[in-house]
Amino acid sequence: MPLSRRIERDIESASKIRKLFEEGIELKKIHGETNVADLSIGNPVVEPPEEFVDTVSGLIQQRAGMHRYMPNLGFPWVRAAVAEALTNQGYFEGLGPEHVMMCSGAAAGLNVVVKTILNPGENVIAVAPYFVEYRAYVENHGGELKVVSASEDFSLDVEKIEKAIDASTRAIIVNSPNNPTGVVYSRDNLLELADLLVRKKSREGKIIYVISDEPYREIIYDDKPFTSITTLYPESFMVYSFSKSLSIPGERIGYVAIHPGMDDSGPIMNGMAICNRVLGFVNAPALMQRAVAGVGVQVDVNHYRVRRDRITKVLEESGYEFADPQGTFYLFVKCLGEEEAFIEKAKETLLLVVPGSAFGHEGWFRIAYCVDDNTIELACRKLRELAEVLEA
Amino acid sequence: MPLSRRIERDIESASKIRKLFEEGIELKKIHGETNVADLSIGNPVVEPPEEFVDTVSGLIQQRAGMHRYMPNLGFPWVRAAVAEALTNQGYFEGLGPEHVMMCSGAAAGLNVVVKTILNPGENVIAVAPYFVEYRAYVENHGGELKVVSASEDFSLDVEKIEKAIDASTRAIIVNSPNNPTGVVYSRDNLLELADLLVRKKSREGKIIYVISDEPYREIIYDDKPFTSITTLYPESFMVYSFSKSLSIPGERIGYVAIHPGMDDSGPIMNGMAICNRVLGFVNAPALMQRAVAGVGVQVDVNHYRVRRDRITKVLEESGYEFADPQGTFYLFVKCLGEEEAFIEKAKETLLLVVPGSAFGHEGWFRIAYCVDDNTIELACRKLRELAEVLEA
Repeated sequence: MPLSRRIERDIESASKIRKLFEEGIELKKIHGETNVADLSIGNPVVEPPEEFVDTVSGLIQQRAGMHRYMPNLGFPWVRAAVAEALTNQGYFEGLGPEHVMMCSGAAAGLNVVVKTILNPGENVIAVAPYFVEYRAYVENHGGELKVVSASEDFSLDVEKIEKAIDASTRAIIVNSPNNPTGVVYSRDNLLELADLLVRKKSREGKIIYVISDEPYREIIYDDKPFTSITTLYPESFMVYSFSKSLSIPGERIGYVAIHPGMDDSGPIMNGMAICNRVLGFVNAPALMQRAVAGVGVQVDVNHYRVRRDRITKVLEESGYEFADPQGTFYLFVKCLGEEEAFIEKAKETLLLVVPGSAFGHEGWFRIAYCVDDNTIELACRKLRELAEVLEA
Repeated sequence: MPLSRRIERDIESASKIRKLFEEGIELKKIHGETNVADLSIGNPVVEPPEEFVDTVSGLIQQRAGMHRYMPNLGFPWVRAAVAEALTNQGYFEGLGPEHVMMCSGAAAGLNVVVKTILNPGENVIAVAPYFVEYRAYVENHGGELKVVSASEDFSLDVEKIEKAIDASTRAIIVNSPNNPTGVVYSRDNLLELADLLVRKKSREGKIIYVISDEPYREIIYDDKPFTSITTLYPESFMVYSFSKSLSIPGERIGYVAIHPGMDDSGPIMNGMAICNRVLGFVNAPALMQRAVAGVGVQVDVNHYRVRRDRITKVLEESGYEFADPQGTFYLFVKCLGEEEAFIEKAKETLLLVVPGSAFGHEGWFRIAYCVDDNTIELACRKLRELAEVLEA
């Protein structure tokens, strides 16, 4: 048995998303790049803004000390720049560099936060459908992921969350705009959860942390207002990545900001510094820290809006049911018939989508529409054809 | 209790190296940059080779798809370039991209390897003095670090290692050139260990993996020959970082290569892909993967040799005892008197070095001489003065 038993099990149930990504590469080799409609992964084809490229080009020429180690939490001036940006954007008052850790993308940030606060045997709540790797991020550190279903409109069902909370509950992961549904939680919905947690803290003296995973918060449509739950509840971690807002997911750069009113913020930040180091991240990539601190723009959301509108039109015309796509570049759609058969049928026609069961919500599927025009058109045709065949 | 109990404990015993690094920053603020001889951390002041800067400058202009996700193991062509380089350098025959994972530096690679193979309760052996974070890398994944002392000349004591191996031993970490001692293990010494492990495998059917941490293998002096134990024993992981060879530790780029003759190499690589993903690395930074694949040079070792010679001369003249500095940019020196008092006394004179107890070898201290000329001269003066005061 060469592998850890846990990893052997994980290989079996390996993230269907990434598996599809690798399968997509194979299918493209066989059938040609332009004949496969690969909507399986959030790997944006949009290029980063000019300003990002110019910033990095400028930085790389300033040589002295550019690529050295820095404190595990990141360059102090970069952390200060993030704190200032978050303050200017109205998220927090009183936020300083001492509340910010630069990290190697949101997946890194989530692992660091969970390791910092979790004792073995404790649990973290996630709301299904949820990004499948949350389970691993919690189990990595000896915890258990407790899954609670969302409401029918994919908003938070706070009553269900309240029932799921037990003596071992340490945190709740909130992901808005949501992957895979594209839903943006309303301020009222988030307030309801914040109120519950404030009550838990004041009445029972029990702190349940909120871990807010919000890499998609700049990708929102139709002026839908965005609220970060971290602004409503002090015991909150804001986990952010520049992967989507700057279209640089391969570079692994993001941050964790804690609410400045968090109890024990000092020990928490110390703990995060240690966890960032011993988990092997050590620090977020140096050049990219400098780059994101210097870039004030983001990708044009219209690029995604056009694609969303194009696909939703086809879905509507073909009779598919889907979640209200308010943000992200995902659509969450009900399968025509039974999930496994639908996904297989789709794959046969060279349309790659991720089954809902990969997100803990069987019978639906996720479309990632951060792809090029050709793929969008191909996908629209295939979605139409599938509806015709399966409803015939 | 805001923090995980494990992390609370870790904060107490936080890596003395990094703590010194942060203290050094403070002391420099108070006393002035040029008055503190900070020899506490391996943060090289040497700039990366011109070719690295030119390569990154060129890459950043080639925009299409530059910063996207790629398979978790890294760009296939980058992995092929690494395999080819290792083959050309005579490390392995038959090495292909399927044996290489790009990772976010050696600390990342070590965590990924340990998580891939370790079951809770199993142990990994390290040889003291050892890089202190090995303990965390093993405990992160539910394992136990078993520490075995080196021989008196800081080579591997294979008899002691044999005695330490038990039914739960899963792997041995070998670190040559060694941090903190600077010792490069001889081929004969490594063969002795390889023979033991081959015997264990053939007689008892028990595979004990070797995890070879070799980020310093290009920093070797006086034509001392370097052997990687991974070339002597098929069940081996070679963990490498470009931090030192290209002087880019802040960028977090390295690789893990497995011996092409490893049993079950396929499942092992699959497991590493999953672990790289779920631990939150996802993939090694995209731009840096491309950069290291394109750069054929490395930093000039003479830079470090000059500094080594300068300090060892002073150490000898002042009567310090130290390990034979054959590689790395570290010197491992016996304290004058009791460790804690010596380190404190040194700190009072603004000389920052890491106590040997941080490496599991009390009574000694580590000097990192990857610093600028001023710091070297300052350190030499302080080391001399300390010897005069303490031996008086």
